[in-house]
Amino acid sequence: MKNVAILGSTGSIGKNALHVVRNLKDSFRVTGLSSHSQWEFLARQAEEFNPSHIALSDLQLAGKLKQHLSGKQIEVISGNNCLKEIVLKSEADIVVSAVVGAIGLSAAIATVQAGKILALANKEALVMAGNIVIPLAKKNQILPVDSEHSAIFQALQSGRQNEIRRIIITASGGPFYDFPADTLADVTPAQALKHPTWRMGQKITIDSATLMNKALEIIEAKWLFNLEADQIDVVVHPQSIIHSMVEFCDGSVIAQMGMPDMKVPIQYALTFPERACLNAEPLDLPRIENLTFKKPDREKFPALKLGYLAVREGGTIGATLNAANEVAVQAFLEKKIRFTEIASFVEKVINHHHFIKDPCLEEILAADAWARQEIKKCLT
Amino acid sequence: MKNVAILGSTGSIGKNALHVVRNLKDSFRVTGLSSHSQWEFLARQAEEFNPSHIALSDLQLAGKLKQHLSGKQIEVISGNNCLKEIVLKSEADIVVSAVVGAIGLSAAIATVQAGKILALANKEALVMAGNIVIPLAKKNQILPVDSEHSAIFQALQSGRQNEIRRIIITASGGPFYDFPADTLADVTPAQALKHPTWRMGQKITIDSATLMNKALEIIEAKWLFNLEADQIDVVVHPQSIIHSMVEFCDGSVIAQMGMPDMKVPIQYALTFPERACLNAEPLDLPRIENLTFKKPDREKFPALKLGYLAVREGGTIGATLNAANEVAVQAFLEKKIRFTEIASFVEKVINHHHFIKDPCLEEILAADAWARQEIKKCLT
Repeated sequence: MKNVAILGSTGSIGKNALHVVRNLKDSFRVTGLSSHSQWEFLARQAEEFNPSHIALSDLQLAGKLKQHLSGKQIEVISGNNCLKEIVLKSEADIVVSAVVGAIGLSAAIATVQAGKILALANKEALVMAGNIVIPLAKKNQILPVDSEHSAIFQALQSGRQNEIRRIIITASGGPFYDFPADTLADVTPAQALKHPTWRMGQKITIDSATLMNKALEIIEAKWLFNLEADQIDVVVHPQSIIHSMVEFCDGSVIAQMGMPDMKVPIQYALTFPERACLNAEPLDLPRIENLTFKKPDREKFPALKLGYLAVREGGTIGATLNAANEVAVQAFLEKKIRFTEIASFVEKVINHHHFIKDPCLEEILAADAWARQEIKKCLT
Repeated sequence: MKNVAILGSTGSIGKNALHVVRNLKDSFRVTGLSSHSQWEFLARQAEEFNPSHIALSDLQLAGKLKQHLSGKQIEVISGNNCLKEIVLKSEADIVVSAVVGAIGLSAAIATVQAGKILALANKEALVMAGNIVIPLAKKNQILPVDSEHSAIFQALQSGRQNEIRRIIITASGGPFYDFPADTLADVTPAQALKHPTWRMGQKITIDSATLMNKALEIIEAKWLFNLEADQIDVVVHPQSIIHSMVEFCDGSVIAQMGMPDMKVPIQYALTFPERACLNAEPLDLPRIENLTFKKPDREKFPALKLGYLAVREGGTIGATLNAANEVAVQAFLEKKIRFTEIASFVEKVINHHHFIKDPCLEEILAADAWARQEIKKCLT
């Protein structure tokens, strides 16, 4: 029996993680849960799974949550450090980090430093601070939850690290891949929120439409799998059936495939190195008929170029890119900027930022804070 | 440094195996080679690789070979038992069995009994006598060379035997897959010898066109991977880019892919569990653009049904099917029977044969001999 804490349990990944745990209740016990502000939903999850600790970032709503759960043996934590506290207090063996954005970084570091398994969906932790987090982790201590990185991790079981020639990350291309470039400036948040193959949260859905999500993924892959920029390829694959591939030095390409279902990579991270039964929709290739592949268009989707820049140069570019993008996506959702301005404003911020080659955590957090301020200048 | 003997070195797989060894000459030394009757080609190979023993089945031509190589330290073996003698005398650590047909069986048994690694392209050994050969072998002692079985074996590194839900063997479908059923009776050997994606020997190319090759492969897969009939699926995939797949119990499907190139699976069998660099044509999915999949048509290609029968019933059906098919293919190549008669005559022989559930080697060889005689009755 393993103890699991799920950070961001009321989000899309978090709900799927609880679904997995519910089906494997003889193997896993939930000891920690957290949400940013959805206190009623979190209360229901806590009532079902009975964790020892839960966290709500929002201080005021945490009061309501405490009142609601009074009489139960569940400690409610709140405030800025609550994710880190859940990691340390919940006696978890595995921490599923399914929060969105930069707020997951300190919890990721705390998890790894405490010697716990980090099932990582919060890619921003590595995008910002891979140079800090990765050296702290032992082999297979950080297990990817992103479908692409889980695919690569599964494919890598068929070879060794030093036998990798390159990885091929697939991208659905988002809803606008075939739109003419000059129409992209006019797409609306409502259009961008309709992802063709995956149902996800708002932030990652917009990132998929700009291909910024792929930019974040190639940065994450660099850190997870210790790769150079020229070892990371991106291929547009609209059906999202092949989740990603590894090409080994003998030319053999190992791919992980399946119907889009986040429960598969989440469960693999929980059960690794074993697999457990999961009642997922089986892959029926004759029914799907066609898998198609295209080169990504780096001119139409300049976010991808920024991702490669961050992979090549490293340093504070990842944190700057991520922070500027978070603010820009929010501004786009609030209809303050155009779709195409997300990437162009992020690029402007990166170009102006004070580059530090091998930053410490304070310098990374400073780059993050600076980028959030700097991009606001573009918004006014 | 490992010693390698290659049975059938002048055939398509054998030449590719020598190509692999030539590129990895710091790791492998050729100590044995064999050919059925191509003595001049075998002599050239012997002069290049300087093995201690070579074999030529044809007794008369063996005399010429001996004369040609006189003065060299290469022992020439000939006659019916020459393959087995090469296995035992050549001090090989790995025996690549790349002969075609039933003649490879005794060499396969000798290899496994001697504790050597058997890199098996001669699928007939398992089709005929999987119940004899497999129990003799330790885990990973028989390594598949067939591209489909190598793909499954590579994919299996990402999970465990008891986690397999099913395997999905891909089939190019051969040159006639989209032909109307009523035109198949009239196809000629010349048409059937034009395989759309793989360049191979005559026998296997005809087997690909009838889908009998897929029938043999599902029988081989049953034995290699210890599967039931309902765990083996076949999918028609005309591009031959995905070489086969494994679906695990969590719904995750691992596929092995690449441009069609037999050097990849041959080398993997030689270097397993490691991979070595190979200058194969890299997979360029955006250039290929489309991978397509169809259900196999068991009515138009009844060979597939015979394969499943052999997987389900076992016993002497595999040997009977294989022997009858060898004779039928030869008769088709000699224009004595029609294309569609290959499968229908084989089916007739299977339906008449004396079924033995758990045959010993003598009973298997008797079924083989009987089937060869029996099918000749159809040819006159």
